[in-house]
Amino acid sequence: MSHYTSLSKSELKDLKDSLQASYQEQKALGLTLNMARGKPCKEQLDLSMDMLNLLNGTSDLTLNTGDDCRNYGILEGIPEVRKLFADLMDADPADVIVSGNSSLTLMFDMIASAMSDGIDGCKPWIHQGKLKFLCPVPGYDRHFSITEYYDMEMIHVPMTSTGPDMDLVERLVSSDPQIKGIWCVPKYSNPQGITYSDETVRRMAALKPAAPDFRVFWDNAYCVHELTTEPDHLLSIFAACKEAGNEDLVVQFTSTSKITFAGAGVAAVAGSEKTLKNFRRRLSFKTIGPDKINQLRHLWFLKDVDGIKQHMEKHRKIMAPRFEVVLRYLEQELKGPGVASWTNPKGGYFVSVDVMEGCAKRVVALCKEAGVTLTGAGATYPKGEDPKDSNIRIAPSFPPIEELEAAMKVFCISAKLAAVEKLLEV
Amino acid sequence: MSHYTSLSKSELKDLKDSLQASYQEQKALGLTLNMARGKPCKEQLDLSMDMLNLLNGTSDLTLNTGDDCRNYGILEGIPEVRKLFADLMDADPADVIVSGNSSLTLMFDMIASAMSDGIDGCKPWIHQGKLKFLCPVPGYDRHFSITEYYDMEMIHVPMTSTGPDMDLVERLVSSDPQIKGIWCVPKYSNPQGITYSDETVRRMAALKPAAPDFRVFWDNAYCVHELTTEPDHLLSIFAACKEAGNEDLVVQFTSTSKITFAGAGVAAVAGSEKTLKNFRRRLSFKTIGPDKINQLRHLWFLKDVDGIKQHMEKHRKIMAPRFEVVLRYLEQELKGPGVASWTNPKGGYFVSVDVMEGCAKRVVALCKEAGVTLTGAGATYPKGEDPKDSNIRIAPSFPPIEELEAAMKVFCISAKLAAVEKLLEV
Repeated sequence: MSHYTSLSKSELKDLKDSLQASYQEQKALGLTLNMARGKPCKEQLDLSMDMLNLLNGTSDLTLNTGDDCRNYGILEGIPEVRKLFADLMDADPADVIVSGNSSLTLMFDMIASAMSDGIDGCKPWIHQGKLKFLCPVPGYDRHFSITEYYDMEMIHVPMTSTGPDMDLVERLVSSDPQIKGIWCVPKYSNPQGITYSDETVRRMAALKPAAPDFRVFWDNAYCVHELTTEPDHLLSIFAACKEAGNEDLVVQFTSTSKITFAGAGVAAVAGSEKTLKNFRRRLSFKTIGPDKINQLRHLWFLKDVDGIKQHMEKHRKIMAPRFEVVLRYLEQELKGPGVASWTNPKGGYFVSVDVMEGCAKRVVALCKEAGVTLTGAGATYPKGEDPKDSNIRIAPSFPPIEELEAAMKVFCISAKLAAVEKLLEV
Repeated sequence: MSHYTSLSKSELKDLKDSLQASYQEQKALGLTLNMARGKPCKEQLDLSMDMLNLLNGTSDLTLNTGDDCRNYGILEGIPEVRKLFADLMDADPADVIVSGNSSLTLMFDMIASAMSDGIDGCKPWIHQGKLKFLCPVPGYDRHFSITEYYDMEMIHVPMTSTGPDMDLVERLVSSDPQIKGIWCVPKYSNPQGITYSDETVRRMAALKPAAPDFRVFWDNAYCVHELTTEPDHLLSIFAACKEAGNEDLVVQFTSTSKITFAGAGVAAVAGSEKTLKNFRRRLSFKTIGPDKINQLRHLWFLKDVDGIKQHMEKHRKIMAPRFEVVLRYLEQELKGPGVASWTNPKGGYFVSVDVMEGCAKRVVALCKEAGVTLTGAGATYPKGEDPKDSNIRIAPSFPPIEELEAAMKVFCISAKLAAVEKLLEV
């Protein structure tokens, strides 16, 4: 296949006709396919069904602290589960709080707590004027939504192959006290699957923010979510912070949403005593304790980090073939024409595709029209505004393989058609 | 036994000596007993153990909407569970959101949402200056804590035998736009066990607040929590609101914390579309969905309101004898001396005791010293400040009967001793 930019107007016109014919063929199939969200598929969810039977016939759910897991209390989670998450995040168990089924909720509440109560003796964020937050782009839409909810100015920071552009991050953070945080997905980033390099982690940990209440929001959502048998290595952020004498800088999050059940997992947050002090206070006002039966279920099922890794190996075997389909189609269909570039992640939940500039919305619309739902174009940018209208996040996890094949066929035809339309405009 | 106020100084002194001797005897037993919190006891928690086995061997947790309960989504809860809570609260299922394990969290988030986002087009509460909240007293400490967290002025409203003093409520609410809400536990109130009369409910529903964003926080925590076979009747607040043309006035809460598991139940909130609009918006930013597996577990176990009522009958048989112990001791030991008055609730979790004025702290301290932990004196008042230092909340649910007997013995001796000490001061 020739590179599209090398084609003449009339060649492009012929191509458009033939692509439109292919597109109409696909559309006529009446597909209803979805590659929009990072939702685990049925087979992945089935992997944890035994967890629901584990408490079977057990009459005693009492911890060795004497606490009954069925009752109120144990605000910060079962000690053994805090230990498990501490191991996963390389944190001190005393710094870990396990609560609820959603790390997103913990992030939201961390910001809500900073807004109304401040961090570590600083003024509440609501009394500090217009605030800013650094948003590595492309990134995770639900992160950006939280800072949008609180009406913060969101500053784009370009992602590189080693993580956020740290020159820019250092310059901004050290000079502007209105900048209160940065969203990070340090391993297998959403959507590119980039793992931050050791240097990036060290520089992040060594930041000298102008704002004493600046925090790095380290969403380690994909810490054990491998697609290959050769995992990326992510340096421990807490170890790096300790080395840099910056132990209050980072608040880390993770969950079992993509380990056990997306809707009924367990979530955790870790940070220094000073960083989490007001978060803890808020927690003590808003609940008498988390669902500890579900925590116990997780503990008995997963056991420890090794247990989690063994379990994740089963996920890998379901996920890897799905990613192969996506990448095979991109390679076969879009490489020659040169109308897109994409990442080849070793873990996580997404493939990030940059279609021709100015074409992302059109591609998503074409796909939609042919029955294939994608994440909205621009969703990977704050407020949904991709300045180049180029990035599209593909989520291969949910559809069955055969649907994924059908969906990728539609996607590639749409990407080519949108590119040809664009080139003919010039 | 003579009424203490009829005794002479020297009689009181003799009495004090003998009470002190009894007290020392009790103290020497080295008890460790707890009547502090409304925690269900082991036997109550055991009633719901079958719920943990219900999903056993089930391979399909898909709703008839096609949604898999194990996955993300269904932000407002499983439709059938929303229907169940709607029946319990006499609400429209469309007005009910089922989320998390704690109604306290829903109350906190309702206020947090009003603070940052406002209610129904009104300015966010954080931008409305110093706010006030009506607190019927004595009342539930965790309610008062939420309004204290947000730095509101808490106005005491005396409870009567038919609910809050409605003359005062009407006068305050209609005249002061800074008053944004009132905390209500309308059935078997915490701590007195008072059920609001029909007139109280109707007057509450007909309030004409000066603040358009004033809301009645209707915490129907004990809606099915009977101690007798002749339940109190509580008028439907939503029906009364409809009748009064005041459908946006009330936001109602309940949960299964004291039906199934205190730590692993399901909580719900109900209110009109306008009232919950910003709450819903906040929810959509902070989570991708609740733990629907636990919702399903509850649905299969409890089935419907009749199922709940049958189940609560089992709770009643465990709880009623405990309340009988408490009331028998109060009757036998404190009636004659006239040093306390108390409520005789037909449901709920507490007995409210008013010891002699100025004695509550002393009674709690004496009990503590003898190994019996009570709710802190004053806890039933905002900021823990009982102006008469008189009210003590007794929670009979948690200790085994024999421990309860021992604890009540200590309590009654302490109440008498504190009274004699007080009378000797004069």
